[in-house]
Amino acid sequence: MPTDHTALLTDHTALLTDHYELTMLQASLTDGAADRRSVFELFARRLPGGRRYGVVAGVGRVLDAIERFRFADDDLAFLRENAVVDGPTLDWLADYRFRGNVWGYPEGEVYFPQSPVLVVEGTFGEAVLLETVLLSILNHDSAIASAAARMIGAADGRPCIEMGSRRTHEAAAVASARAAYVAGFATTSNLEAGRRYGIPTTGTSAHSFTLLHDTERDAFTAQVASLGTGTTLLVDTYDVAEAVRVGIEVAGPGLGAVRLDSGDLPSLAAQVRRQLNSLGATGTKIVVTSDLDEFAIAGLAAAPVDGYGVGTSLVTGSGHPTCGFVYKLVARADGLGPDATMVSVAKASKDKISIGGRKYALRRLDGRGTASAEVLGIGEPPHSDDNDRPLLVPLVESGRRVHDEPLQVARDRLRTSLAELPLQARQLSRGEPAIPTIFEGE
Amino acid sequence: MPTDHTALLTDHTALLTDHYELTMLQASLTDGAADRRSVFELFARRLPGGRRYGVVAGVGRVLDAIERFRFADDDLAFLRENAVVDGPTLDWLADYRFRGNVWGYPEGEVYFPQSPVLVVEGTFGEAVLLETVLLSILNHDSAIASAAARMIGAADGRPCIEMGSRRTHEAAAVASARAAYVAGFATTSNLEAGRRYGIPTTGTSAHSFTLLHDTERDAFTAQVASLGTGTTLLVDTYDVAEAVRVGIEVAGPGLGAVRLDSGDLPSLAAQVRRQLNSLGATGTKIVVTSDLDEFAIAGLAAAPVDGYGVGTSLVTGSGHPTCGFVYKLVARADGLGPDATMVSVAKASKDKISIGGRKYALRRLDGRGTASAEVLGIGEPPHSDDNDRPLLVPLVESGRRVHDEPLQVARDRLRTSLAELPLQARQLSRGEPAIPTIFEGE
Repeated sequence: MPTDHTALLTDHTALLTDHYELTMLQASLTDGAADRRSVFELFARRLPGGRRYGVVAGVGRVLDAIERFRFADDDLAFLRENAVVDGPTLDWLADYRFRGNVWGYPEGEVYFPQSPVLVVEGTFGEAVLLETVLLSILNHDSAIASAAARMIGAADGRPCIEMGSRRTHEAAAVASARAAYVAGFATTSNLEAGRRYGIPTTGTSAHSFTLLHDTERDAFTAQVASLGTGTTLLVDTYDVAEAVRVGIEVAGPGLGAVRLDSGDLPSLAAQVRRQLNSLGATGTKIVVTSDLDEFAIAGLAAAPVDGYGVGTSLVTGSGHPTCGFVYKLVARADGLGPDATMVSVAKASKDKISIGGRKYALRRLDGRGTASAEVLGIGEPPHSDDNDRPLLVPLVESGRRVHDEPLQVARDRLRTSLAELPLQARQLSRGEPAIPTIFEGE
Repeated sequence: MPTDHTALLTDHTALLTDHYELTMLQASLTDGAADRRSVFELFARRLPGGRRYGVVAGVGRVLDAIERFRFADDDLAFLRENAVVDGPTLDWLADYRFRGNVWGYPEGEVYFPQSPVLVVEGTFGEAVLLETVLLSILNHDSAIASAAARMIGAADGRPCIEMGSRRTHEAAAVASARAAYVAGFATTSNLEAGRRYGIPTTGTSAHSFTLLHDTERDAFTAQVASLGTGTTLLVDTYDVAEAVRVGIEVAGPGLGAVRLDSGDLPSLAAQVRRQLNSLGATGTKIVVTSDLDEFAIAGLAAAPVDGYGVGTSLVTGSGHPTCGFVYKLVARADGLGPDATMVSVAKASKDKISIGGRKYALRRLDGRGTASAEVLGIGEPPHSDDNDRPLLVPLVESGRRVHDEPLQVARDRLRTSLAELPLQARQLSRGEPAIPTIFEGE
């Protein structure tokens, strides 16, 4: 057994896939159905936890994953040695690359129940194989971005710092920092996210740094000497008031910030603000951390706080670590060749309802630019008014990626899309989606 | 900005680290405190959700991460270009490798509040740098294993299949499959987990495979022709009773299994069992899936079910996707050189209590081998009776890994450790830990 436990992905993504995608491929190659033209859609049946909207994130990562979805020799060797699929299927996989089309909601767009976040068109064989990795990426990244956007809303302009790496899988941590940045977080603690995505990274010190030194004063002196007076001193290792006093004594009234990581933050922040002001440190900021979520952030709105550091609740989606996106076959040809007709299909059982037929989507806007509905056309684009905004953009055309954008564009898009939503979208309480989803056609 | 979004880890792990670990290093290099001998401990203050025990998983991955924790040229270039740390610190990092010692609970061991799951001894500088990646791995993997072990307990001998890849980050999915296997899951759907860790993989077909075909009969015929009569047919796409009838007609009474993925599973399973028996398919198994968690599994105990497929709730830790492990400095030298004395340290504020001083741990067992307490010695090993079992094993000695074991050993260890616990450990309800944590010394 290999002991290679940390090099989590090679540069190909094909084995990040459920076994059954390959057995379905094999069985459908046997009777030729693998070549039937097919449309799969990725969507959520509902928003988790009575939320008002969801945020699409991970689209850039999805497109990378599709480009890299190849079966290398060692992948094929594994499949052969373990008899996952038969010889003809292995031959088919050796030549695999996705040659179909993908449309989707661009990164940073908001979504609602049944929104066709991704539409994948190709042969059944080539499209079914992508199911697992597409769902993994979008379920994770969108869950983080959806929680993060609520935190950004609650913070109401004050900067939020992503610092949850330690509370999630080490690679998910990097993706979480990326999703939080899409949602509007200012910085991340995660260095790999800084390198990989160009996200600004920040950080200064932990309690261990203070405890390492003989006195808190020694620790602050070393930190200020090394990192400058603009640094952030962590002031709750022993006694907060004493630490603030010593901190300003060491750094002077130009100290950048103090950080509070425990205690009753609203009252503590008020005390510290008064003390800082009395010491002439009127420009010294107060950053709070300590198991914050969107509700705790909202509860600090009236407190003299200048920034929020968010960890656990961000990287765990604030109670909803996955979006519940599914990937369903909604239409397929009734045969092979140019004469075949596309047929809408859907599971017929009572729960887990799916709606067959390919979807087209637009956001209906009123004369003032406020969104009033998510309108989905089944089988054809819905009727569009002047103000309505189409939501699906081409991502892959005949296997070629046609979409690539900087994260900043996604950040800006989310701000614009959220500004379009009616005010109730900002409510943190459980309730209905901010706008209804309406179907047209079929 | 690079568009390399999926190759999640290179073969070095040093940037899977919070920015502040490096600024603490820089500041402590400035005043020499970085070289003080230090002991960090990784532990949980409590078990989440009133659970009765936690399961340690990820130890093998942690040891790999430590071995690969090196700053390569491109890592250093990133840190330099972004002025994360100064020149002398970059020089120090270029030579970095961990040269200290690590002890820990071996993989598959159970843990309780305050159990010193990992003890890291080295200079402050070398030990603080590991904080983020050690926490990421153990917080994730142990959260999955802790949930998985409850599911295995509830399944009471019936096999459980891990199939949650699509509901979590694509690399976390691989680690989740590994953690579930440690906890006793029989197989996984995740092919990369099969390749990387040798975990058996399984899977047959989804609703899309049935919907792809003109009729359910066509789908079943293709599947049985390709995968054999031992395959598992998914029977809830249209009408379950009809699907079971057709399935046995196509495959014969030797059909391997049918899978139910929706509906009221206890009553549906009973109906299907009766129908299968009436068709002579008495050996055909019934596998159920559909948002199962440990409670749903327990609720199926009396149903004629032969296996459980678990997805979302497994990979999200069944409501607790992270363990809340922290990594705290508990002791450090009061100076440099051989005459320095180790001093116990701990944050003094009222919440987030830590207990200073290095911990030693054993499980107290009575004459019949039943565990009665987690006994922690502070500063020295606790008094040990004949039956008591020491819990910490050496993992790294002077930077050299001294522990490597197959996953099967961890699986076996968990079974043994769980069998030692009093019966209340099996309770799924919220309550106190199965055994208390007792401190001795200091």
